[in-house]
Amino acid sequence: MPEEIRIIPLEGIPEVREGDDLPDLILKAAEAGPGIESGDVVVVTQKIVSKAEGRVVSLDSVTPSPEAERLAVETEKDPRLVELILRESTRIVRQSGPILITETKHGFVCANAGIDASNVGPEGLVSLLPEDPDRSAVAIRAAILERMGVDVAVIITDTFGRAWREGHTNVAIGVAGMRPFADYVGQRDPHGYELRVSTLAVADELAAAAELVQGKLDGVPVAIVRGYAYPRGEGSARELVREAEKDLFR
Amino acid sequence: MPEEIRIIPLEGIPEVREGDDLPDLILKAAEAGPGIESGDVVVVTQKIVSKAEGRVVSLDSVTPSPEAERLAVETEKDPRLVELILRESTRIVRQSGPILITETKHGFVCANAGIDASNVGPEGLVSLLPEDPDRSAVAIRAAILERMGVDVAVIITDTFGRAWREGHTNVAIGVAGMRPFADYVGQRDPHGYELRVSTLAVADELAAAAELVQGKLDGVPVAIVRGYAYPRGEGSARELVREAEKDLFR
Repeated sequence: MPEEIRIIPLEGIPEVREGDDLPDLILKAAEAGPGIESGDVVVVTQKIVSKAEGRVVSLDSVTPSPEAERLAVETEKDPRLVELILRESTRIVRQSGPILITETKHGFVCANAGIDASNVGPEGLVSLLPEDPDRSAVAIRAAILERMGVDVAVIITDTFGRAWREGHTNVAIGVAGMRPFADYVGQRDPHGYELRVSTLAVADELAAAAELVQGKLDGVPVAIVRGYAYPRGEGSARELVREAEKDLFR
Repeated sequence: MPEEIRIIPLEGIPEVREGDDLPDLILKAAEAGPGIESGDVVVVTQKIVSKAEGRVVSLDSVTPSPEAERLAVETEKDPRLVELILRESTRIVRQSGPILITETKHGFVCANAGIDASNVGPEGLVSLLPEDPDRSAVAIRAAILERMGVDVAVIITDTFGRAWREGHTNVAIGVAGMRPFADYVGQRDPHGYELRVSTLAVADELAAAAELVQGKLDGVPVAIVRGYAYPRGEGSARELVREAEKDLFR
């Protein structure tokens, strides 16, 4: 019988700075609130992970290349920001007016290589995506297991735009402690009578669900999803990235 | 202060047939379970809406066109299914091997025009997307308001694939009683000091959240999301469709 799922905002996470012990901040906030239980999914926004890992760059420290200067004119962006976008990307997927969609070194296709120029703190600072968000998720999960003895899944998220549809949605960019997909075997297909399998990207759906309690205030960067029997096993967000050669839209 | 959100599977919806009074089935299941409260989001999978609306077609009744016959060979699909896909579409967006991605008459970009060839009942029956899922959502919402006096939002969903990422996710194809987007105004952008606005497609995030309790059994085609302060106003899933001329991936 399917169970009710709870999406719980975790309040009381302070402003995060480089070097902060993120699992400690999460556990303290959880202790004062809903706790953390075995089988929870701990969903953490990229912003605080990047801050804790020191992935914050001052634009003043960046010297734009000629290519960045040229692209900055076309996109009407700060050339130093464009330089960072290019450094974080393996290639430009689309550029049209101010829109600059690239493939990041992780393989994510998103605007501006996922660089966030808002709300990082003092003016002129921007946050890059974590270098390896799967590794970040593994580290948070391991720390929670070690310090609290509870086995959780961890998802690191960011809000990306999509092809074909307006608006952003929250997606998983780092995953630990669960498989990112659930396979639903349906009934037989009328053509050929084969079994039909649907693969649902449940890590992305968990990220989306968490955004509903996180989105309005940057003060709620962590949510706990309780009651969802996530697919057990070791998995990563890297598996969510379609290989370029299989992708009809890259 | 953000509130906890509950994703509640609505059990006890019987097998749906053409002409069934879907709001009645939903209300009866809710009565025996979690009830329906003002401010709930009632999330309904496309499949039962299509069934109730008689959008189920027997492949035996379909005569494929020469174009469908040709494309059926390329995609290794039943030519009658391909004929239905073409009838439901305004154009083919990508075709590669067995993959056939089209733009539906609604503007949705998805595989096989959203036609579901699994699990419809007797062999040889397939279900098409509702003709106007926004209208379907409006009708369900109006019936719930009229019969129960509670004001809810309604989302009709389907699972679509995406560009760039593996796996399907549940998205909104019909919306009533809410705006599909939430605009989050952030702090000032370091470049140009403009206010930055993020537009989140919360109707899609609600659809994704609902899938987490619906997905495993076709017996749970309705979920109730309780505790989410959705953006008030009249909205539609049509707004979620990016106009073709603005879309860099169509």
